Amino acid sequence: MEETFPRSTPPRRATLKDVARAAGVSQSTTSRALSGEGYVAAAARDRIVAAADELGYVPHAMARSLRKQVSRSVGVLVSDLRNTFYADLAAGIAGRARSRGYTMMLVDDQGLLDQELHAAQAFVATRAAGVIVTPLSADVSTYLLRQRIPVVEVDRRFSAGACDAVVIDNASVARRMTDHLIALGHRRIALLIDETDWTTGSERFAGYTRSLADSGIPDDPSLVVSAGWDVGGARKAAVGILTRRDAPTAVFAANNLLAEGVWRAASDLGLRIPDDLSIVSFDDAQWMSMVSPGVTAIAQDAVALGEAAMDRLLDRIEDPDAAATTTVLEAQILPRGSTSAPRPA
Amino acid sequence: MEETFPRSTPPRRATLKDVARAAGVSQSTTSRALSGEGYVAAAARDRIVAAADELGYVPHAMARSLRKQVSRSVGVLVSDLRNTFYADLAAGIAGRARSRGYTMMLVDDQGLLDQELHAAQAFVATRAAGVIVTPLSADVSTYLLRQRIPVVEVDRRFSAGACDAVVIDNASVARRMTDHLIALGHRRIALLIDETDWTTGSERFAGYTRSLADSGIPDDPSLVVSAGWDVGGARKAAVGILTRRDAPTAVFAANNLLAEGVWRAASDLGLRIPDDLSIVSFDDAQWMSMVSPGVTAIAQDAVALGEAAMDRLLDRIEDPDAAATTTVLEAQILPRGSTSAPRPA
Repeated sequence: MEETFPRSTPPRRATLKDVARAAGVSQSTTSRALSGEGYVAAAARDRIVAAADELGYVPHAMARSLRKQVSRSVGVLVSDLRNTFYADLAAGIAGRARSRGYTMMLVDDQGLLDQELHAAQAFVATRAAGVIVTPLSADVSTYLLRQRIPVVEVDRRFSAGACDAVVIDNASVARRMTDHLIALGHRRIALLIDETDWTTGSERFAGYTRSLADSGIPDDPSLVVSAGWDVGGARKAAVGILTRRDAPTAVFAANNLLAEGVWRAASDLGLRIPDDLSIVSFDDAQWMSMVSPGVTAIAQDAVALGEAAMDRLLDRIEDPDAAATTTVLEAQILPRGSTSAPRPA
Repeated sequence: MEETFPRSTPPRRATLKDVARAAGVSQSTTSRALSGEGYVAAAARDRIVAAADELGYVPHAMARSLRKQVSRSVGVLVSDLRNTFYADLAAGIAGRARSRGYTMMLVDDQGLLDQELHAAQAFVATRAAGVIVTPLSADVSTYLLRQRIPVVEVDRRFSAGACDAVVIDNASVARRMTDHLIALGHRRIALLIDETDWTTGSERFAGYTRSLADSGIPDDPSLVVSAGWDVGGARKAAVGILTRRDAPTAVFAANNLLAEGVWRAASDLGLRIPDDLSIVSFDDAQWMSMVSPGVTAIAQDAVALGEAAMDRLLDRIEDPDAAATTTVLEAQILPRGSTSAPRPA
């Protein structure tokens, strides 16, 4: 047998008993001090922690997690916490996780692929019981599945068939919203969109395109503007498109930050809503019911989406070998006052 | 010696070499597959993961973290991600963490003490390099410090002297805001407040009280309303106070969610701002510059607060034994159109 072993005897792992003896306290006090569950006099705790450090004792919670191969934390990866959609989604997950005894560990990957993969590695290293992700590509779910970590994709899906997904029917509701503008008489409808290579973006774009095609409105690619995720950028892009000679009479913003950018651009330009410009938003946000007129929006219930994703993850943890499912939740259009017929040309 | 040992020999820990041999691949391929760093053919990865599982191999990242006693993740604990203040704070921390090679792991404790302590334990178990917390009590910092985890308290502080803190001068700016209302002629100024047993709440309350006292305005405890953290609750509380016979002529909302509740209550009651009611907010929010008139607000730069907290934490990780510091950032008042002289009675 060619395997070599180190010559020196490896040190025996320190036990709780060793720590208790070194600190001069009982094992139960030591256990409480190191687990953080229950209170221990400050002086005793200091001695215990010092002894544990010196002996290289592996803390209780970690040792237990290693032993059981189970963790009570759930990893969540989202793209931008400052977008209230993700904050609501996270709130739905966190509430449901808490009621089932899990702690939600959240990472904001800031839309960056490398951050997403670092976070996924961190979830593996810390033995998350499962991960819920708004993916930037298929890589993150593939990686986690290969590490045997249950995964649910939410909002966006890249791994249909390979892992569970909880989404809304973006194409259908985007189409209905575009139909609404066309029914009012609009023909030049701009679409401000974030990332068309994400499934949400490509589906929303498809719904918009389909609605125009069904109404026989010729395609005008110059009306589809990639405006990212940032209010400032969207505001600038919207000023650009609204000051063109052949400006659109309506703008469909494909997320709530883009809608804020368009709204502020209209305000910058002194355009009255809806008389001079109709605006609609994919995703509702708090301010849309506070401004006057309110903004007609597609409301997905992001909290419910988060709850459904957490429920799906718990099912998956229970039954790792069941076939992957896709859950599609409804989204509704909230009509407010931001649309009307276009001005006669 | 009275210590007893188990009779059976404990199993030898599986090594990377063992896993590689069982999977029939090289050690470097095995290392790449288990660390997730670099790509490995799917079939090989599956065999490697299966072998590692069977042999009970402890994954690379975790073993390395255990060995080095260092982690590249930073734990962050906030109270409510749906409050944009915390989302902005987290964005500041995450951006700075990323530029220094750390991943931010965020937990929303939902304002619950038990959640806060569970999260702190999870950060200890996963060997976070440090923790930034908006604490609910002194317990969380005490616990983490005893576990030798560097801690920075941000926004609220409960452990002055024991750990680093990054805050704003809540009392002074709350006092200046109250002075502003008094200067306009208001005498009946309500304060809607969240938690007066948090340092932020108690300091804001102190600033308000001090301003009234300095102007010789008699104390009226019925004008100070504990309204929690929820827009709906604040709206109800505000309707209550605004429909009293001796209703206040101005309301100072001690956080942005309370301000939204007051604003919506005024709208419910058909009160015109500022003619019928002056409103001011502690904390700016996106909608406050979108409604008409805009809401006069105290703007703390939550992103900068997060960045300063992360910088402080990095310093603390470098130098664990330096004396604890408190960093106080400036906050400014943004005058918009939501205040005016009260109507003549």
